[in-house]
Amino acid sequence: MTTALQSPPRRSTARLQEASLLNGPMLLLRSIRGLRTNQSIAWLATVPLALLGLGIFSFAARAGVGLSDLSGPQAATFLADNLWLFIATILVIFMNAGFAMVEAGMCRSKNAVNILAKNLFVFALAVTAYWVVGYSIMYGNSAIGGWLFFNGLFFDPDPSGALACAAAGDTGCLVPAVDFLFQAAFAGTAATIVSGLVAERVKFGEFVVFSLVLTAFIYPISGSWQWNGDGWLANLGFIDFAGSSIVHSVGGWAGLVGAMLLGPRIGKFVDGKAQAMPGHNMAIATLGALVLWIGWYGFNPGSELAMDEYVAYVAVTTTLAAAGGAIAATVISTLTSGKPDLTMIINGILAGLVSITAGCGNMTLVGSWLAGAVGGLIVVFAVAAVDSAGIDDPVGAFSVHGVCGVWGTVVIGLWGVDGMDPGAAGIGLLNGGGLNTLLIQALGAAAYAIWTVVTCWLAWSVIGGFFGGIRVSENEELQGLDIGEHGMEAYPDFASAR
Amino acid sequence: MTTALQSPPRRSTARLQEASLLNGPMLLLRSIRGLRTNQSIAWLATVPLALLGLGIFSFAARAGVGLSDLSGPQAATFLADNLWLFIATILVIFMNAGFAMVEAGMCRSKNAVNILAKNLFVFALAVTAYWVVGYSIMYGNSAIGGWLFFNGLFFDPDPSGALACAAAGDTGCLVPAVDFLFQAAFAGTAATIVSGLVAERVKFGEFVVFSLVLTAFIYPISGSWQWNGDGWLANLGFIDFAGSSIVHSVGGWAGLVGAMLLGPRIGKFVDGKAQAMPGHNMAIATLGALVLWIGWYGFNPGSELAMDEYVAYVAVTTTLAAAGGAIAATVISTLTSGKPDLTMIINGILAGLVSITAGCGNMTLVGSWLAGAVGGLIVVFAVAAVDSAGIDDPVGAFSVHGVCGVWGTVVIGLWGVDGMDPGAAGIGLLNGGGLNTLLIQALGAAAYAIWTVVTCWLAWSVIGGFFGGIRVSENEELQGLDIGEHGMEAYPDFASAR
Amino acid sequence: MTTALQSPPRRSTARLQEASLLNGPMLLLRSIRGLRTNQSIAWLATVPLALLGLGIFSFAARAGVGLSDLSGPQAATFLADNLWLFIATILVIFMNAGFAMVEAGMCRSKNAVNILAKNLFVFALAVTAYWVVGYSIMYGNSAIGGWLFFNGLFFDPDPSGALACAAAGDTGCLVPAVDFLFQAAFAGTAATIVSGLVAERVKFGEFVVFSLVLTAFIYPISGSWQWNGDGWLANLGFIDFAGSSIVHSVGGWAGLVGAMLLGPRIGKFVDGKAQAMPGHNMAIATLGALVLWIGWYGFNPGSELAMDEYVAYVAVTTTLAAAGGAIAATVISTLTSGKPDLTMIINGILAGLVSITAGCGNMTLVGSWLAGAVGGLIVVFAVAAVDSAGIDDPVGAFSVHGVCGVWGTVVIGLWGVDGMDPGAAGIGLLNGGGLNTLLIQALGAAAYAIWTVVTCWLAWSVIGGFFGGIRVSENEELQGLDIGEHGMEAYPDFASAR
Repeated sequence: MTTALQSPPRRSTARLQEASLLNGPMLLLRSIRGLRTNQSIAWLATVPLALLGLGIFSFAARAGVGLSDLSGPQAATFLADNLWLFIATILVIFMNAGFAMVEAGMCRSKNAVNILAKNLFVFALAVTAYWVVGYSIMYGNSAIGGWLFFNGLFFDPDPSGALACAAAGDTGCLVPAVDFLFQAAFAGTAATIVSGLVAERVKFGEFVVFSLVLTAFIYPISGSWQWNGDGWLANLGFIDFAGSSIVHSVGGWAGLVGAMLLGPRIGKFVDGKAQAMPGHNMAIATLGALVLWIGWYGFNPGSELAMDEYVAYVAVTTTLAAAGGAIAATVISTLTSGKPDLTMIINGILAGLVSITAGCGNMTLVGSWLAGAVGGLIVVFAVAAVDSAGIDDPVGAFSVHGVCGVWGTVVIGLWGVDGMDPGAAGIGLLNGGGLNTLLIQALGAAAYAIWTVVTCWLAWSVIGGFFGGIRVSENEELQGLDIGEHGMEAYPDFASAR
Repeated sequence: MTTALQSPPRRSTARLQEASLLNGPMLLLRSIRGLRTNQSIAWLATVPLALLGLGIFSFAARAGVGLSDLSGPQAATFLADNLWLFIATILVIFMNAGFAMVEAGMCRSKNAVNILAKNLFVFALAVTAYWVVGYSIMYGNSAIGGWLFFNGLFFDPDPSGALACAAAGDTGCLVPAVDFLFQAAFAGTAATIVSGLVAERVKFGEFVVFSLVLTAFIYPISGSWQWNGDGWLANLGFIDFAGSSIVHSVGGWAGLVGAMLLGPRIGKFVDGKAQAMPGHNMAIATLGALVLWIGWYGFNPGSELAMDEYVAYVAVTTTLAAAGGAIAATVISTLTSGKPDLTMIINGILAGLVSITAGCGNMTLVGSWLAGAVGGLIVVFAVAAVDSAGIDDPVGAFSVHGVCGVWGTVVIGLWGVDGMDPGAAGIGLLNGGGLNTLLIQALGAAAYAIWTVVTCWLAWSVIGGFFGGIRVSENEELQGLDIGEHGMEAYPDFASAR
Repeated sequence: MTTALQSPPRRSTARLQEASLLNGPMLLLRSIRGLRTNQSIAWLATVPLALLGLGIFSFAARAGVGLSDLSGPQAATFLADNLWLFIATILVIFMNAGFAMVEAGMCRSKNAVNILAKNLFVFALAVTAYWVVGYSIMYGNSAIGGWLFFNGLFFDPDPSGALACAAAGDTGCLVPAVDFLFQAAFAGTAATIVSGLVAERVKFGEFVVFSLVLTAFIYPISGSWQWNGDGWLANLGFIDFAGSSIVHSVGGWAGLVGAMLLGPRIGKFVDGKAQAMPGHNMAIATLGALVLWIGWYGFNPGSELAMDEYVAYVAVTTTLAAAGGAIAATVISTLTSGKPDLTMIINGILAGLVSITAGCGNMTLVGSWLAGAVGGLIVVFAVAAVDSAGIDDPVGAFSVHGVCGVWGTVVIGLWGVDGMDPGAAGIGLLNGGGLNTLLIQALGAAAYAIWTVVTCWLAWSVIGGFFGGIRVSENEELQGLDIGEHGMEAYPDFASAR
């Protein structure tokens, strides 16, 4: 009954309950199809009909176990586990504010409304899609051994199973509601990362449709490979504690494909040389970075999926990696460009955080600081390399989430350790663990890259083909997407300097 | 000893302790009255005098029960309950930042300092007023059966009662300090909602006095009808889990009266047609919306007033309603105006959140998403209707908090369920619960509307009469309230576009 | 086994474990010294070498006690204590965002990037410095009885000791990771306060070096006098619950010395009269104040270092002091200058919070409100006094953190009480406690002032001497530090009004 994480760490192995909830939606669809009145009335009319079909819980009454049946240690663990996971969930959801501020602040003011709208709306959409189908795909029962899972639509929020789990003396017995919400927030994060890469030129509606596909299908399918206890990568021993690969690199790769299909913003490259297009509001960008830092305390320590003596340790590895990333990126960017660039400090922090996300439970403290510092070093050069490749990544999201996502996955194979117990053995190439972990980590990182690039290329292409392209017109881009896509300005009271 | 909420859910039924604390303030008042020296010296002199009168706890020593006397399950529940409520309180207080950013961002830059100052100062005032008298009125002993309560000034922070409650095997045993602070934050929320409706034209001092009256008397009195266990609405079976009516609609109605008495801003209506007066900073408005979303995880799940297996369920209903509201408002506003307006996405989210606030513990997941979606639909049309009525609501606060506050109360009568247990029966008109719930919910919503409109009309009128009007001069309004009321600008370094 | 705080309250008395971790760093240093290749390759090469030396835990395997060995009350307390402290830590770290927004918002836009960069980078540096050496100095074993402590570099994150502590029936058994992170966040706060005082004219690199010295040595040494259980001030009975003196006044004094050595900004004094230099963004300044308010709920209640029935009480004293500070500062500044200045409302809130930080566990509720109100009054006059003295404190940081830090320390000697039990006796001059407490509090406040002024004068001078001054050139200052120090602007899309 120890809660110490053994290698490889796994996310919740509890399966969604079998009870299919498909009956309700079927009723709803049939009722919509049957209506021949005008659209808006039909829409309103479906509300009561939907309620009749879906509006009450259809499963059996809950089992007899209640909070009051738990023994002292059981109650303590159950309540602490569920409280901590709920708080972690709130922190991860708060990251939306961080992403919105970083991305908006690092773009030009004429596109600020568009970025803000994307971030707000896509989170609402991601939660809905993940609720309807994504969560079931990611944590359902296997359809094709270890590669594809499904459990019917929606999920059963009955907390009885978690209480019975606690009453049996287990730890980490999360009620379905908190497990769903925590995972839904992660799905939203992946979608938000894409937003930065395609900023300042993608059509609003087309981006929204892509986000729907990403959070409903692409992310949950590959996520299940590791975080569903029966996934093929989990069975191989792949380690990705909180999602350097599963969340960050997937977001990074998905956005990279979008950025490449879109092409660079007008004026970004002159004679093949990348031009600076400075962000319009460094105050909110900095605020966003600090909010993301805070949110990461839910993202990483929350991925312990229980409250125990190791949660704070994960927070320290996370903090030291952020510090290492900030220091390395600042030093390197000062050495290479003469002055400490604030956007590089911000990206250094985020790079450090992404670099520790996979290994935050499999790293010593020194190893964590170094993993972050190398991430901070990498991000400076990656930004330059992306520019050199002629790819336009307005906020450096691929360098931060994609490149450092891969780095964070691979570094476990270099100097990771086998869990958080003080006596944990080295499992990396450089600390006596041999080559095995490194190979598995590289394989996993590659699997996420290949899957995401292929499916997202397909998705962006189909969406673009269907709607007539994913890029706004040249006129609209020059004028700014705020007017073109939303008919408004972010700062109408202020005179423009341009 | 189960903590499952039975219908109707009730807030803390524990009464404030009897011990009157009036002695201290009486001494203070007498000492002030007796002084004939100049004012500032007198003020300083009262400090030591006050201390002698008030500065030590005057009640008997605490009872013998301590943390170490609790059994395992008792300690687990007591600590989790009080920790969770404290965290929920922090989240609700954080909503001040959300309201400040949304309201300031959606107004013009020349009035930004005024809105920010109102939000900061009014929260300080609300906490003080609620501490001195409001909490006692809301949770005291009944003076007039079910309609008016009072328990003397201040409150007794002795935690002994809560420990004894826990030692007796009960759950939800909150120490008075956390219960007070949670409720005080709710009182502050009601006052902050008003701020949005009267923005850009109300005098600072007059608004401050109104807020004092609202948080000390108007809000606590009507709040006690439901959340004081002996209130007449509670006894009727009225359901308002976290305050769609009690907090949001009260704030909305109070502000509406203010907005009507003030009249529209100069230039808002030309030939009877509403003119767009766009907000000056959509970045902070969006940030504010996301902060409010986060804060709502304290507002709604915190209203369970305990940590148990249902808290996360309330968070999921809250999240899905926000998502539904965002999606519906975006779709509808795109259909009606051609482009997705960011202010409508923001208001859709807030509308969804307000729409689930009453029923977040009495709704299925599908029901929650739909309640939010209908709220998002309502807010789009309500904003237009308020404009058509010639009422100037600069940030759409009445549509969000007033109209959706009523909707969120009433929807329980349409498709609510009887608690959060999976087997909970339908209590709405559309899911087999008959008409009874709907009628009681409508009665409650109406009671809050009537009470608030009447008392606030009186309060605004008396304050206006006493101070010579509540509206700034035409010159000051044109120049901006920042200069007129505060002698400063919000963004002095930036050139104006107007 | 009661957790009631007895006077004087003390921070964790648990010592860091003895096991020296110096071996690893020694190996690292030797490996660096031995390399003769070029610098950047050497840097990269140290990574694997460092890993071999440091990368695995070198201490013995953990003791046998696990979570599952704890009894019900033990598990409940252990989990609640560690969960609460972790959450408190997150809140304190969030204060970085608050400080960054307040300080940036209250300065001119041409220096915004510089302030933001300082706040971001210095926190990363502070955490690293405190990890390497500061924490060991502050909470290590005494080298010179009660005055100087040290325990080797780094710290041992093994949670076994905390579990054994819990298994022995103790409360407040924090795992080293959470204790370190909480204390590291405090160290970062002290450094951030300095940033405000030297804003708009200090060189970036020189400030960074000073911050390193402050967080690695100056702050931990004086901090140990009280918060290390064996410190000489702790032994005297000095009370500083959460750091009015230890954190805030140290930050204030350190910055004051910097501000005096730097001299005023160009244009601040004309003919000896202070000129207004208004902040450029009151929206983010207000947001920052609210974030700080929220963060203080970690700072003060977290300093209870356990979850118990008193944590929420500390939150109420904190809230009431903030409210009192806001109200007093607003009233006084309206009386003295005619209109309620938003910066004074903000500084009033912060003054109230600083004023209760030392006494938040030793004050009645009325006493707390009054302590905050007097702080709000003090800050208005202190700002004027600092101006009159010809010292340029751009954001009022010395008045808030320095002056009110002293006031908050001393007020306990005026009307403090002996802990948070309802029956706690008065220990102040005005409530029957005699002169003793007042004298000790004044002595402690003086000790922090003298220590900080002397060491910081030395540090600033040595750094200035070594690097050729700590102030930017006149040209750079006039143009703005954003261009000079960072080569970028905070808001390039907006036209300047200046």
